[in-house]
Amino acid sequence: MNVGILGGGQLGWMTILEGRKLGYRFFVLDRNPKSPASRIADGWFPPEKVGEFSRICDVITYEFEHIEEEVLENLEGNVLPSVEALRIKKSRANEKGFLSRLGYPLPRFEVCRLENLEEAVRSVGLPVVVKAERLGYDGKGQYRVFSLKDLGKIRENHSEGESFVVEEMINFRAELSAVGVRDRRGRIKVFPVTQNVHEEGILLYNWTPESSVVEREVVGMVSGLMEDLSIVGLLAVEFFLTETGDVLINEFAPRPHNTGHYTLDGAYTSQFENLLRAITDLPLGSTKLKIPSGMVNILGLSLEDMELEEILSVEGTRLYWYGKEKRDRRKMGHVNVVAKDQETLKSKLHEVLRRIYQKEYSLP
Amino acid sequence: MNVGILGGGQLGWMTILEGRKLGYRFFVLDRNPKSPASRIADGWFPPEKVGEFSRICDVITYEFEHIEEEVLENLEGNVLPSVEALRIKKSRANEKGFLSRLGYPLPRFEVCRLENLEEAVRSVGLPVVVKAERLGYDGKGQYRVFSLKDLGKIRENHSEGESFVVEEMINFRAELSAVGVRDRRGRIKVFPVTQNVHEEGILLYNWTPESSVVEREVVGMVSGLMEDLSIVGLLAVEFFLTETGDVLINEFAPRPHNTGHYTLDGAYTSQFENLLRAITDLPLGSTKLKIPSGMVNILGLSLEDMELEEILSVEGTRLYWYGKEKRDRRKMGHVNVVAKDQETLKSKLHEVLRRIYQKEYSLP
Repeated sequence: MNVGILGGGQLGWMTILEGRKLGYRFFVLDRNPKSPASRIADGWFPPEKVGEFSRICDVITYEFEHIEEEVLENLEGNVLPSVEALRIKKSRANEKGFLSRLGYPLPRFEVCRLENLEEAVRSVGLPVVVKAERLGYDGKGQYRVFSLKDLGKIRENHSEGESFVVEEMINFRAELSAVGVRDRRGRIKVFPVTQNVHEEGILLYNWTPESSVVEREVVGMVSGLMEDLSIVGLLAVEFFLTETGDVLINEFAPRPHNTGHYTLDGAYTSQFENLLRAITDLPLGSTKLKIPSGMVNILGLSLEDMELEEILSVEGTRLYWYGKEKRDRRKMGHVNVVAKDQETLKSKLHEVLRRIYQKEYSLP
Repeated sequence: MNVGILGGGQLGWMTILEGRKLGYRFFVLDRNPKSPASRIADGWFPPEKVGEFSRICDVITYEFEHIEEEVLENLEGNVLPSVEALRIKKSRANEKGFLSRLGYPLPRFEVCRLENLEEAVRSVGLPVVVKAERLGYDGKGQYRVFSLKDLGKIRENHSEGESFVVEEMINFRAELSAVGVRDRRGRIKVFPVTQNVHEEGILLYNWTPESSVVEREVVGMVSGLMEDLSIVGLLAVEFFLTETGDVLINEFAPRPHNTGHYTLDGAYTSQFENLLRAITDLPLGSTKLKIPSGMVNILGLSLEDMELEEILSVEGTRLYWYGKEKRDRRKMGHVNVVAKDQETLKSKLHEVLRRIYQKEYSLP
């Protein structure tokens, strides 16, 4: 079985590591032959060779959303999840519109152009989050706006004609997410819900809390949305749990997700293996939890910047190092953590955070 | 970090899959460039290029014992575990002699040449197991001898001057094993003991039973032997639990072991990752069990010979497919199994065995 992956980042890298166990061969399409997944694939293709790439692959999946339109148009064969799901996700306005039309609970929002920004902000009501329509991930192109003065920076960074989603700023009690998997016959499994903590728009750490009253609501929405998008593969959905106990959808992604990395060590089957099982017509693996687990991202640090020995001497930790060039706040790797119970898990996560970043964190 | 592996089989393959997570690069020395580990390594070397191989590697380990003497003699640099440990293991007579001198409990045995076989058999007393001194693994070169007539076959297959170990045949209640890991500073951890079932001298399946009264005895012997052999890396030890409750050492291997494959899904850290942590001076990972687990070997079957869909639809199963050419009774892959409790685990192992081999097995 030859599996193609659009994108060569760490999500593709982990998909390959997991998929090798199934005996599959992997081909990566990415501009960079030294990207994490390109380096360990059986073959690498630049975007210009999308035709050749397509022909060698029995099935193609993707590991990030921002794939050039020219590549999408020239893909041949079996792309899973569908390019349609990807196209909806590629535009924040489409994503919000799609969810809103189907009646999923969302923060109030408006779509506007740069020239109508103030109007949209007034209509939604301060404070708001303004998100550039395209190429927004890991907090890029996102602005927290508390007063109209804050719009100045957005006007500086962007040009007339650019589109934005203006969204009410949610005063959340917790950020949650769940990754679901759906196979070609429509069978669905959903991994346990995690609680996530972001820092400057980038996931810092997450863990599997004790199952809560909203678990059923979350699983229902993930399942419903997988059907609405006709997903074959993975769908990750991020939620806000509001102060009043409501669950609102923040965003979704039809691919492996940073908040699902814990599944490599904590779940019966990882998100990456289940993606491959789904798109290659193998039975979905169990999404049950083996043991309470969590993850800490390593942001903007090289191996030399850390005391690796100290970090890995915390019991139940494993390192995943992507081998990327260091950049400020870039996701360089992560540490998975497992522990026999919730309390131990939290104290270990705390310890790992402290040892990576050399400062104290107060965990929720 | 450049890690060299002598041998390109599935043990090397799994070591690479696990080691990629730590960001290491891997170089394999093996006659076959298409062996499982050679195919996924960063570089492959034939035995003739042992010098070049040595120079590129920061540390070298091995994944099987039967490495050509010429390779061992021409290795430069840091080989862990030591070549001395390997040399003891390469000869069954040395292995037995070493254990016996140090007072470890063993089945009674004698070492002899082909021409003195009958004498040795009489001295040990029928029934016995006769094992060729060298190149014996997976039941190769082993003979169960119930009467002197059975010696005819051995005389046919071997030549004068060849050496043998003649060993009392143990009427065992169970076969057990445990894999230990020891780092450069002498710190030791031992993975949980497993119960193993062989068929025609080859491991068929194993699992982690409830901890037993002999657990402490086994862990003590594994730890002691790691010190006696000055192991840096892994040591797997196989035991007989006799009808009378004694624990005897059957054999050892200073490398990853088939009976430790369950650690990939069942333990906090896998045997492969702990090998790498030990030889690259990272803190040893916890050897605790996350969840009851076991393994079934896939012997002599291709993917086409099996109903993979049926096998993987047993909850808690994962496939490891080595990508080797099919041969009679060859280890082609394995299925790891995890389950919430012992009873469920046993019934799942039974189900997986039945679905792979299309026949009934009675589990102990």
